[in-house]
Amino acid sequence: MVKEVKIGIIGFGTVGAGVAETILKNGDVIARRTGIKLILSGIADIDLTSNRGLEIDPDILTNDYRQLIGKVDAVVETVGGTTTAKNIILEALGNCKPVVTANKALLAEAGEELFAAAESCEADIYYEASVAGGIPVIKALREGLVANRIKSIYGIMNGTCNYILTRMECDGVDFATVLNEAQQLGYAEKEPSLDIDGYDTAHKAAILASLAYGRWFGIKPVYVEGIRDISLLDIKFAAELGYRIKLLAIIKQVDGDVQIRVHPTLVPETSMLGNISNVFNGVMIDGDTVGETLFYGRGAGRAATASAVVADLVDVGLNLKFGSHRRVPAFRIGPQYRKLLDINEISTRYYLRIQVKDHPGVIAAIAEILTNENISISSFIQREAQELDDNFANVPLLILTHHAQEKQMKAAISELEKLDFVCDKVKLFRIEDL
Amino acid sequence: MVKEVKIGIIGFGTVGAGVAETILKNGDVIARRTGIKLILSGIADIDLTSNRGLEIDPDILTNDYRQLIGKVDAVVETVGGTTTAKNIILEALGNCKPVVTANKALLAEAGEELFAAAESCEADIYYEASVAGGIPVIKALREGLVANRIKSIYGIMNGTCNYILTRMECDGVDFATVLNEAQQLGYAEKEPSLDIDGYDTAHKAAILASLAYGRWFGIKPVYVEGIRDISLLDIKFAAELGYRIKLLAIIKQVDGDVQIRVHPTLVPETSMLGNISNVFNGVMIDGDTVGETLFYGRGAGRAATASAVVADLVDVGLNLKFGSHRRVPAFRIGPQYRKLLDINEISTRYYLRIQVKDHPGVIAAIAEILTNENISISSFIQREAQELDDNFANVPLLILTHHAQEKQMKAAISELEKLDFVCDKVKLFRIEDL
Repeated sequence: MVKEVKIGIIGFGTVGAGVAETILKNGDVIARRTGIKLILSGIADIDLTSNRGLEIDPDILTNDYRQLIGKVDAVVETVGGTTTAKNIILEALGNCKPVVTANKALLAEAGEELFAAAESCEADIYYEASVAGGIPVIKALREGLVANRIKSIYGIMNGTCNYILTRMECDGVDFATVLNEAQQLGYAEKEPSLDIDGYDTAHKAAILASLAYGRWFGIKPVYVEGIRDISLLDIKFAAELGYRIKLLAIIKQVDGDVQIRVHPTLVPETSMLGNISNVFNGVMIDGDTVGETLFYGRGAGRAATASAVVADLVDVGLNLKFGSHRRVPAFRIGPQYRKLLDINEISTRYYLRIQVKDHPGVIAAIAEILTNENISISSFIQREAQELDDNFANVPLLILTHHAQEKQMKAAISELEKLDFVCDKVKLFRIEDL
Repeated sequence: MVKEVKIGIIGFGTVGAGVAETILKNGDVIARRTGIKLILSGIADIDLTSNRGLEIDPDILTNDYRQLIGKVDAVVETVGGTTTAKNIILEALGNCKPVVTANKALLAEAGEELFAAAESCEADIYYEASVAGGIPVIKALREGLVANRIKSIYGIMNGTCNYILTRMECDGVDFATVLNEAQQLGYAEKEPSLDIDGYDTAHKAAILASLAYGRWFGIKPVYVEGIRDISLLDIKFAAELGYRIKLLAIIKQVDGDVQIRVHPTLVPETSMLGNISNVFNGVMIDGDTVGETLFYGRGAGRAATASAVVADLVDVGLNLKFGSHRRVPAFRIGPQYRKLLDINEISTRYYLRIQVKDHPGVIAAIAEILTNENISISSFIQREAQELDDNFANVPLLILTHHAQEKQMKAAISELEKLDFVCDKVKLFRIEDL
């Protein structure tokens, strides 16, 4: 008994076209496997003439998304943005039509409102594709690992950033050059800020943290730094110390308190996350029962994202078939932590690069400032200027610390930068010894 | 509206105790997240006195599994083996009680019979823990990646073997020594054949292949080689060539035909699978829509296995709550391939080590034999005896080939071993350039 489910796609851009293509191409095998036959019944967009490389029956194309919502069983929102997309989702839910979306920015911003709308009309809203693209990590977190209290989640979740960092590391090309190249190749947007300043990763981190710890955090409490200021010099020094620099989302519970932060992070080159290169994403989830797990794959792109959207559509279809709507609800509140830490309250290991004029007393003065802030040094490396490939007027001092509190680290840096022989801003990266 | 689901565990060994522990420890958070409250209502075993380190109400312990089946909503089979376990599962299903099992050997051997029993009584049978322990890879394959036609699955799925190979590679200890040590540590069984001869991996490969390609293959058509004959010398040579040797399950479709094989394989040291060490497992799934994905974690052990069993119990509970039994059926037949290839019909790259007496004409004679069998050489390395750490009376020739057919490779090896100056069996490994 195959159940037919009429699908309407609103937003016929890259992802929308990928979803249409996947339904057309693999609908038969999906039906054989699941008993759900997805029928591509309508596609709404303002632009109906651009060539998406697909053979679509022109009768199913429309400019009128409201009409489309009326005639389908389930709606895919692939418009993007946080204004029209939100109205579309609310209208679909208002008509008791289940919704599948990949819209991480909208979910992070207005998730609670959308979920309330879904609850009041008892319709599903699924959003697997919003985090790490094709990797079924939301299903893993909510279903496959449901028996676990989540100790931590570490994610490399922005392909653009990971591509740029991989190229910088492997080919010794600086940030601006790689970004420009990535823009030419279509790996980076013309306006790249959402990606490279860390906000896209932060949206995804907010969603995973919410699912792990039972409160819809939104993006506001997420501490965010991007990758613009990463220099080849620090990538090189990190490599010499056995680390790679990755833009990492860090979500973890320590002594009952939760941290959610996104920043460039030194991770061991031998770790699984250290080995995720180019546009690939990886999410490491540590559960109290299962231990360490990793989910890896393509975090973006037309086809990978479509894979996740269509999987959600099958879940929607099964819920329609069995009348099991909201079997796995979009979100279930119930905080499972003590408090959310401010960045100043966290404790971690640090990498510091201090550019100094080489004269007597430098090391003693720096060591004293760190000691005063209760920061313990694990490695101290002074490089001679001539060892370096580049021409530096000054000498870099590299310091790796043991765990220290962020607040004390900032106080120490402020003191360090007052020293006469410190020539530049102190460069700081946090370290995770995964 | 939390639904209570009474759970009965049959088999109070390592995994059964882990399941009980997880329900007791995390039942509250599972109920908050899912609306399903798992109640530990009964545990059946022959041995009710051994200390499992848990505080269990003695009233729920019984020697009589039939009585237990009668009074619970769902049954966990953690007896193991293929005789009693099968009877238990059939009895539970006969009483319309859903079953969760981790029993890969039984599933590979008698899956069709169990699934038919489940179908006739419309009860669920779930088996996430049967493949790769705590990693939710069956859920990923059947649900998260349901939109994909599966191009290939590569799995490191036996922790014992991976631990032994990692130790051999990293510490230069030979197979017999590491095996003995692993047995002391409890990483390997006293009777290690199931693991080290590849059969455990083959059971798991058969299950994944069946889910990917729509026919319940069982273990019979799976080609299996274990790791007993891997020498430190080959691990060292592989490393010099940029490869690691892993016991790999290879399931793939090439030109419509399916291959299922388990054997030691050279994989690039820079690949994700090449970086899976110690007891960890990893399953790489390549789908036509999502591209390459990897699922990584602990493949065995009390807690990790329990994580998967309890996740299945939640799915069972949700199906009971919503009346959506068999929402994702245990298995749905529908072959999606042309034919299953015999090992002789496959084509792959090979590593050959040929021990020869060093005299004129050796290379020419070997090259001629390979050429006659249409085997093309990609690297040819002759090492001088004194380069090697060990004392060899003979010189090893290393040959890496381009793709060649297994049948022709075997014919070539048979000819090579007839040559006067070839002193030993030719050592062969297959290569996957992941």
